[in-house]
Amino acid sequence: MSKGLPKRSEDYSLWYNELVKKADLAENSAVRGCMVIKPYGYSIWEKMQAELDRMFKETGHTNAYFPLFIPKSYLSKEASHVEGFAKECAVVTHYRLKNAEDGSGVIVDPEAKLEEELIVRPTSETVIWSTYKNWIQSYRDLPLLVNQWANVVRWEMRTRLFLRTAEFLWQEGHTAHATAEEAKAETLQMMNVYAQFAEDFMALPVVRGRKSANERFAGADDTLCIEAMMQDGKALQAGTSHFLGQNFAKAFDVKFATKEGGLEYVWGTSWGVSTRLMGALIMAHSDDNGLVLPPKLAPTQVVIVPIYRKDEEFEAISAKANEIMADLRKAGVSVKYDNRDTHKPGFKFAEYELKGVPLRIAIGPRDLENGTIEIARRDTLTKEQFELASQPITEKITGMLDDIQKSIYDRAFSFREEKTTEVNTWDEFKEVLENKGGFISAHWDGTSETEEKIKDLTKATIRCIPLARKEEAGTCILTGKPSEGRVYFAKAY
Amino acid sequence: MSKGLPKRSEDYSLWYNELVKKADLAENSAVRGCMVIKPYGYSIWEKMQAELDRMFKETGHTNAYFPLFIPKSYLSKEASHVEGFAKECAVVTHYRLKNAEDGSGVIVDPEAKLEEELIVRPTSETVIWSTYKNWIQSYRDLPLLVNQWANVVRWEMRTRLFLRTAEFLWQEGHTAHATAEEAKAETLQMMNVYAQFAEDFMALPVVRGRKSANERFAGADDTLCIEAMMQDGKALQAGTSHFLGQNFAKAFDVKFATKEGGLEYVWGTSWGVSTRLMGALIMAHSDDNGLVLPPKLAPTQVVIVPIYRKDEEFEAISAKANEIMADLRKAGVSVKYDNRDTHKPGFKFAEYELKGVPLRIAIGPRDLENGTIEIARRDTLTKEQFELASQPITEKITGMLDDIQKSIYDRAFSFREEKTTEVNTWDEFKEVLENKGGFISAHWDGTSETEEKIKDLTKATIRCIPLARKEEAGTCILTGKPSEGRVYFAKAY
Repeated sequence: MSKGLPKRSEDYSLWYNELVKKADLAENSAVRGCMVIKPYGYSIWEKMQAELDRMFKETGHTNAYFPLFIPKSYLSKEASHVEGFAKECAVVTHYRLKNAEDGSGVIVDPEAKLEEELIVRPTSETVIWSTYKNWIQSYRDLPLLVNQWANVVRWEMRTRLFLRTAEFLWQEGHTAHATAEEAKAETLQMMNVYAQFAEDFMALPVVRGRKSANERFAGADDTLCIEAMMQDGKALQAGTSHFLGQNFAKAFDVKFATKEGGLEYVWGTSWGVSTRLMGALIMAHSDDNGLVLPPKLAPTQVVIVPIYRKDEEFEAISAKANEIMADLRKAGVSVKYDNRDTHKPGFKFAEYELKGVPLRIAIGPRDLENGTIEIARRDTLTKEQFELASQPITEKITGMLDDIQKSIYDRAFSFREEKTTEVNTWDEFKEVLENKGGFISAHWDGTSETEEKIKDLTKATIRCIPLARKEEAGTCILTGKPSEGRVYFAKAY
Repeated sequence: MSKGLPKRSEDYSLWYNELVKKADLAENSAVRGCMVIKPYGYSIWEKMQAELDRMFKETGHTNAYFPLFIPKSYLSKEASHVEGFAKECAVVTHYRLKNAEDGSGVIVDPEAKLEEELIVRPTSETVIWSTYKNWIQSYRDLPLLVNQWANVVRWEMRTRLFLRTAEFLWQEGHTAHATAEEAKAETLQMMNVYAQFAEDFMALPVVRGRKSANERFAGADDTLCIEAMMQDGKALQAGTSHFLGQNFAKAFDVKFATKEGGLEYVWGTSWGVSTRLMGALIMAHSDDNGLVLPPKLAPTQVVIVPIYRKDEEFEAISAKANEIMADLRKAGVSVKYDNRDTHKPGFKFAEYELKGVPLRIAIGPRDLENGTIEIARRDTLTKEQFELASQPITEKITGMLDDIQKSIYDRAFSFREEKTTEVNTWDEFKEVLENKGGFISAHWDGTSETEEKIKDLTKATIRCIPLARKEEAGTCILTGKPSEGRVYFAKAY
């Protein structure tokens, strides 16, 4: 078992990197900035996908698949869009290799140059709206509610596993509507779907908000977002939902015949979450012993470890373990019996702690005599003896899993509340940012210039304008100009 | 409703292309050879994925994700592998665009050239075995049973929707084992998983076989396959499973400490099926009216269409339809009530025929009076009046769905049997190939030269050496040399 995870309090960043590797979640590949998502990490991502996919379908969306490649000219059709993505994209220029004539190996065949370069999609608005042009003629074709699960590539210079990688996995919803109101309602609905997923499944409290103009998606008229707080006091953007106005409809000439007989441009939205959520999940709950997973996303919710010296003991324990396992499976609990004889119980305990299995059951010979089992909770690292006769085991375990799910949410919520500070002066702002971190709720004059200046001076950005903010007149912490309400500043991932 | 699907008997190829587009399965994109999989087509692919994924997990495999890009030098490490894929691969050479100085638009930034070119994966053996080197140290790490769902790119010059596209979706299993026997058993097991999926879910009978050396995967020691027969008498390779020997272990230096204390190269397999299966599914069962789908893969199994003139009639019919729908859903049947008032019943009937919905229920005012409904089967295009009092509706419908599943399999099986011909002379071979098509079971002398010559002369290839063939001495149809048994020739997709 790999030992020696660094402590969060000593080096949070190193703790995260080591945890991702030691818990078998992901690792760097031979290709700069591209990660390998390992089986254990991928099984958590699959659970996230399944829940999100269900929520998308329940809100009327269907999946489809669009090309990996985008012709360079397409990317350029929406001006601010290409501006946003051109600086970090992988470009395909050739379609063949050949053997070098000097025998030095395989080279790119200069005769196999593409007429037009292809961009590996950094996001798919352009290729999708070029397709929508053929799918949409009349108001009867609207709304068009499509989602895609795909890989995308953004050639980031500084990468970190899950949080920022050159290639990542995500879903991108792309919808088309007859009216601005409908498109805005969709934008809001999907932001709420993300928030609900984060809170109910990831046990991750989020702030629902709106991005400032500076932080908006390249090509959007409005970007809504959910923002989460990590244990080191830095914010993490966990999902975004964009109101695209008619920008892409105009760029790709997508018009529809209205009910009234007119011809109008379509209104659009797009929204996405990515494997970045894995980073948020890991950083929000885990501790110095390893991963802490919310039961609703844990690939294995309960592990049973036998404690024995003699073969007869092992047999009797296994019979009990199999009985418990069958009961729990019937109740929909995912459970594993680790009967490996190649590893000692202590090794197994450490392994499941590292991997964040929510509940561990240990059964020894004395337990068999007494009709008990030992149940250990991963989130609190507490143990209890449970008398099997006192309550049905399924009721006990599902009750504990529910409690863990709620409990780690509550802990993350309290932490975020504690890390959210209202400040009213520039000095206070700097002081809190430096010594405490977290979200800083402060007045801002609403201009991009001030926002940029604060970023330059402190590295803090406006994470969002909370949707739930109350109207409150005030003065900007930097300029003293009038402000209509507080926004959330933070240093961010 | 789109009319005028060409007839299979007149132009099978055009029929297929038009069907794929008109049934909303897929279409060509703006990027040469890359397709858009439309929502309806993708929903069928999702059902395929779900079943295959379940079967992979039941046989002990887990999913993971590896990088999209492969360094050029990696692709070259296995000699026959690079030979097989170098001629048709998309090459990334740059990582940035910039604005042209003359204002002519966005160009590739010549200063952002990659040190080493990256290949968009045509298959992932190289990048995965380079990773396995770090994952495998000892016999305790084996077997390693991993699958990946991903997109891959092969720059084919002649493309057809689903059957051959530059980008396609697939799964690729990559396993590592301690012994050759174990790896061979895995290769066989996964071929059988594919065969079972094809037969039980796609209702597609397949021949389980082994590829000749010529047709083997680039880098494999042995390739097993499943081969299906299409309605035009051409064969379609529907899945392959490769025994890789130690080829990739040697290319990437993947060794393991044996139980006995030695150090040995690992044995490998890889296996895959792709969106090509969609092409097989469409071509195997569909008819001149459109798609015919096996109920187990149909996104909608039953559609209910109301037939009415007056609003009161519509209300009464809807009440009955909703009641039936609720019952069927409880029984696990996917059912849709098409209550659109914008389209006439005849239009709806044609639409669901085109889209291959297995069962259509029509309910009119007289049906309400008589306690009946009309049930139409897509596969046979037959209708019957069903008395609701005579049998529970769920029993009736699930019985019919089961019968359709079996019936279209039987039809495809009979067709294949009829299209499989034993021949013993070269003249017979040519005659059957030209006038009848299908699988031709014939003796072959076992040499690549003869195989190539037959291909040059007739375009027929050896589809496989059937695993179930009986030993039978004979003489090669072309050379007259001795043969140990018959192989299957055919023209193929």
